[in-house]
Amino acid sequence: MLRTLSRFFPVLEWGRDYRASTLLNDSVAALIVTIMLIPQSLAYALLAGLPPQVGLYASILPLVAYALFGTSRTLAVGPVAILSLMTAAAAGRIAAPGSEAYVQAALILALLSGLILLVMGLFRMGFLANFLSHPVISGFITASGIIIAASQLKHILGIEAHGHNLVEITHSLVIHLPDTNLPTLVVGGGSLAFLFWVRGRFKSLLKGAGLSEQAATILARTGPVFAVIAGILAVWSLGLEDRGVAILRDVPRDLPEIGLPAFDAQVWRQLAGSAALIALIGFVESVSVAQTLAAKKRQRVDPNQELIGLGAASLAAGVSSGYPVTGGLARSAVNFDAGAQTPAAGALTAIGIGLATVFLTPLLFYLPQAVLAATIIVAVLTLVDLKAVRTTWRYSKSDFAAMAATILVTLGAGVELGVTTGVALSLFLHLYNTSRPHFAIVGQVPGTHHFRNVNRHRVVTSPRVLTVRIDESLYFANARFLEDTIYCILGARPDLEHLILMCPAVNHIDASGLESLEAINHRLKDAGVTLHLSEVKGPVMDRLRRTDFLDELSGHVFLHQYEAIRELDFDTARGALEDTARTTEPGGDPCPSQELAGLARLE
Amino acid sequence: MLRTLSRFFPVLEWGRDYRASTLLNDSVAALIVTIMLIPQSLAYALLAGLPPQVGLYASILPLVAYALFGTSRTLAVGPVAILSLMTAAAAGRIAAPGSEAYVQAALILALLSGLILLVMGLFRMGFLANFLSHPVISGFITASGIIIAASQLKHILGIEAHGHNLVEITHSLVIHLPDTNLPTLVVGGGSLAFLFWVRGRFKSLLKGAGLSEQAATILARTGPVFAVIAGILAVWSLGLEDRGVAILRDVPRDLPEIGLPAFDAQVWRQLAGSAALIALIGFVESVSVAQTLAAKKRQRVDPNQELIGLGAASLAAGVSSGYPVTGGLARSAVNFDAGAQTPAAGALTAIGIGLATVFLTPLLFYLPQAVLAATIIVAVLTLVDLKAVRTTWRYSKSDFAAMAATILVTLGAGVELGVTTGVALSLFLHLYNTSRPHFAIVGQVPGTHHFRNVNRHRVVTSPRVLTVRIDESLYFANARFLEDTIYCILGARPDLEHLILMCPAVNHIDASGLESLEAINHRLKDAGVTLHLSEVKGPVMDRLRRTDFLDELSGHVFLHQYEAIRELDFDTARGALEDTARTTEPGGDPCPSQELAGLARLE
Repeated sequence: MLRTLSRFFPVLEWGRDYRASTLLNDSVAALIVTIMLIPQSLAYALLAGLPPQVGLYASILPLVAYALFGTSRTLAVGPVAILSLMTAAAAGRIAAPGSEAYVQAALILALLSGLILLVMGLFRMGFLANFLSHPVISGFITASGIIIAASQLKHILGIEAHGHNLVEITHSLVIHLPDTNLPTLVVGGGSLAFLFWVRGRFKSLLKGAGLSEQAATILARTGPVFAVIAGILAVWSLGLEDRGVAILRDVPRDLPEIGLPAFDAQVWRQLAGSAALIALIGFVESVSVAQTLAAKKRQRVDPNQELIGLGAASLAAGVSSGYPVTGGLARSAVNFDAGAQTPAAGALTAIGIGLATVFLTPLLFYLPQAVLAATIIVAVLTLVDLKAVRTTWRYSKSDFAAMAATILVTLGAGVELGVTTGVALSLFLHLYNTSRPHFAIVGQVPGTHHFRNVNRHRVVTSPRVLTVRIDESLYFANARFLEDTIYCILGARPDLEHLILMCPAVNHIDASGLESLEAINHRLKDAGVTLHLSEVKGPVMDRLRRTDFLDELSGHVFLHQYEAIRELDFDTARGALEDTARTTEPGGDPCPSQELAGLARLE
Repeated sequence: MLRTLSRFFPVLEWGRDYRASTLLNDSVAALIVTIMLIPQSLAYALLAGLPPQVGLYASILPLVAYALFGTSRTLAVGPVAILSLMTAAAAGRIAAPGSEAYVQAALILALLSGLILLVMGLFRMGFLANFLSHPVISGFITASGIIIAASQLKHILGIEAHGHNLVEITHSLVIHLPDTNLPTLVVGGGSLAFLFWVRGRFKSLLKGAGLSEQAATILARTGPVFAVIAGILAVWSLGLEDRGVAILRDVPRDLPEIGLPAFDAQVWRQLAGSAALIALIGFVESVSVAQTLAAKKRQRVDPNQELIGLGAASLAAGVSSGYPVTGGLARSAVNFDAGAQTPAAGALTAIGIGLATVFLTPLLFYLPQAVLAATIIVAVLTLVDLKAVRTTWRYSKSDFAAMAATILVTLGAGVELGVTTGVALSLFLHLYNTSRPHFAIVGQVPGTHHFRNVNRHRVVTSPRVLTVRIDESLYFANARFLEDTIYCILGARPDLEHLILMCPAVNHIDASGLESLEAINHRLKDAGVTLHLSEVKGPVMDRLRRTDFLDELSGHVFLHQYEAIRELDFDTARGALEDTARTTEPGGDPCPSQELAGLARLE
């Protein structure tokens, strides 16, 4: 009973061993994460086109919900860059940024993506994330990083610019470039330079000064806080506000309101597809972060329970004036490095953000938007991974094609079309590549019971018996190719009496593969050739026995290939075994696969 | 040069050997096919909602075009039942049957599907047909047969009825049932009974009377001609026209006009998707017929050249007042049985239909539509294959699910949604089923160098070294599953020092699989476990060498599994080989795949 309960409420598991020392560790981690999360939450809300307090609200209740239902001990949830961008793209389709309808759309996205994650979790559908291949995700994140960085340049320059893809944004930036506000550019450019320095040189300096790698990393990660403080002081002391530097102004000191967003069937339907994408991308990102951290401590993350944890977090965001959240890489790493031991650290962080919302927001009045934009740019540029593009190109042209398509379509036409195109293309290329499996005509290696490819080895073949080895499972995408291959071979060998299909590598045969085998059997029979099978695996044989294929098969099923040849052409088999038969020279394939299926394999 | 030319114009190949005897054989076949094709062309035009002469037009120029470009010696192209139904569904969406716009839509469909086939042929994209699995095609044809038969009942009953799916048609039939016209029912019912009798008993009688199987089949297949003649005579002599029996009336005696359909970008765009489906379904059907016939004579059909042949035929239909055509099963079989030797038989058939259009159509004035409907019903009911549903259920639940979904959606929501649903579901189920490949923890069989699944055999395992065998290629759909499995095993074995992945059945590793291997390597390193590979195939190894994975791998790549164990745990390997080590009992899997991936494999 408790076991079942604690599966759905992991808090029952870790809560039992909770001690004062654990609380201390969790509190320290929570404090550090809170400090880091305040500027980040404000910045990501800005990126999503939402009022700054929405970012803070998304960092309160969702963290408590994840602490109750999540399985990762160290994952820190909250607003993240990619989901902020996706939220902006989806909400921007149905309302103008800044409008009440826009804020409502963000809420609905959080609620719907939470529901989708919960349903996926309850029905254990985490496998759906498998449809997103690594090259597609990697390409998507790289392209999103570039779009986000470009979209923030307007805040650094102090100009207007709009758009949800690189073309629109660049166009808009170029048009408004003459309006650049110099004081804003100084603040923004200064922040950028400072933040890059903190990430790079400053960290080395700290380590050089004797700090541990861990401490240096944490300090470097809190760099944005110093930038924020410096920015506020600069605006306040130099009166930069009057010289055109955009600032945050009043951030409401209220805690989030609890309540459901307004229900409008048409709007909800319009947002459903985007919510599903947000759910899936958020899940994939978060699980990969959680697994990386868990593996370091030999802990485990249950992907299906994670769906429930992240779903609860997003739902919580949807009912508490937030917007879609998920586990973030940077803050989770800080949480881990700062020594968080249980999800309670997340709940403590929520308290910290709550306190900050009530007591700290007045201090943020003069915070320049350019500083927030700089923190976003520095954060997302680490997501841009051009090296992955190069290594993928070297490793596999198919995977590269999927990645390149994802990047180009995302940059040119936005995030949703980009990821959809990538998924469709990677599925297509996978099916295309497996639709022409490797086949080999084999002969007997002299002096042995072994059979090898005639094109690679000196082997003995029979003039009357031909053996074709299939190096793949037979399913609908390659069933017709099998038929083509056999008919091609048949056309080239009019003197043939027996054909043996050697199946040691056939792991399964679906109904289409079976149909093709039946068709081959009938057509060979019409042509006066007997069809045999050899070395069929046990489970495949079990399944074939459920059909009448084995009754209709014109020949036999042999356990071993040698047995088949001995039975069908005793002289050749014997001659080969005693090494007295003439071997054939390795030679050209009569039916090269390019001829049969049109295009070559893509690599 | 001639070789290349004769690849695109197969006529150059067979034309060179054309003799008087070939001409005689082809002429006899053409005469028989012409006689059979006249009522069939009229009937299918009726089914497509088009004027009767359109069916004749679609049986003239397209046959000449296929004779020039097709590779099958005996395929007979022309209107077929399924494409007529699909044409009706697509054209019916944009215009009312009988209107000029409807006829134009059918022309545009022919033109577009012809272009699509040509482009697929030129770019050798015949593999696209692989996306249609056998269960989906079989289910689609069965459901289409049922819909067509139901849609023709109105002509048998002499009532009005409309609809593109079974629900609509049945509903419409039931409402209008009281309007049944008795004389029509007598003519239609009589034709049905006669045609069923000809197909069944009559053929046996003929064979009993000493006719050859071949001659009996041909005579039985021309049954509709007798029904047509009897129907015309009955209407004419009994004046049934005045008693409410619908007749063909004037069929224009003109030959088809040559010209392009009117171009309207919006209409063409609306029809493009339907045209693609018509092209694909027509191609799959035709190639399977052509291959069956070719195999009987050990000839070959080139699927990519067939695309060009069928594309040319459809294009010809589109510019000569026809509608989409493809190779038909019944008429191709008759053509084959009647002794056609070259595609010239098709060209001769075209001349026959042309002559019939000019000279025979006045005789068809009194032809009752009920007779045509009866010929359609008898023809399509042979397409309904409920046995296939049963055998697919027995063989594979996944394939059955795809087939059942295709049938139900086609019957309930029409042909286009039906086939699209079937394709999507079969792709999804394939990926789902391969997303959780078989993994096994293996141990050494005492006294041998062999390694087997610990859950099935008494084997020797090492306390420090764990070996996991992967029984599938690693690609994006199962890469995460591999990670989950390894982390689960890692969680259950905190004392582990070495993990070996045994890869004899891994045929390829895509970029996602590589990413997962890299992640596993890093995470195991963090946890203090060394990762090794064993028995990696040559081509997979070649590709891994293009990356830095092998440099970063914490352990080694061993050629043989025994070598790995001997290197990493000499005592256990030696003890197992000398059969002095204790074997483990076959036991439960610490990480059953259901736990990991949520749902069980569908079968």
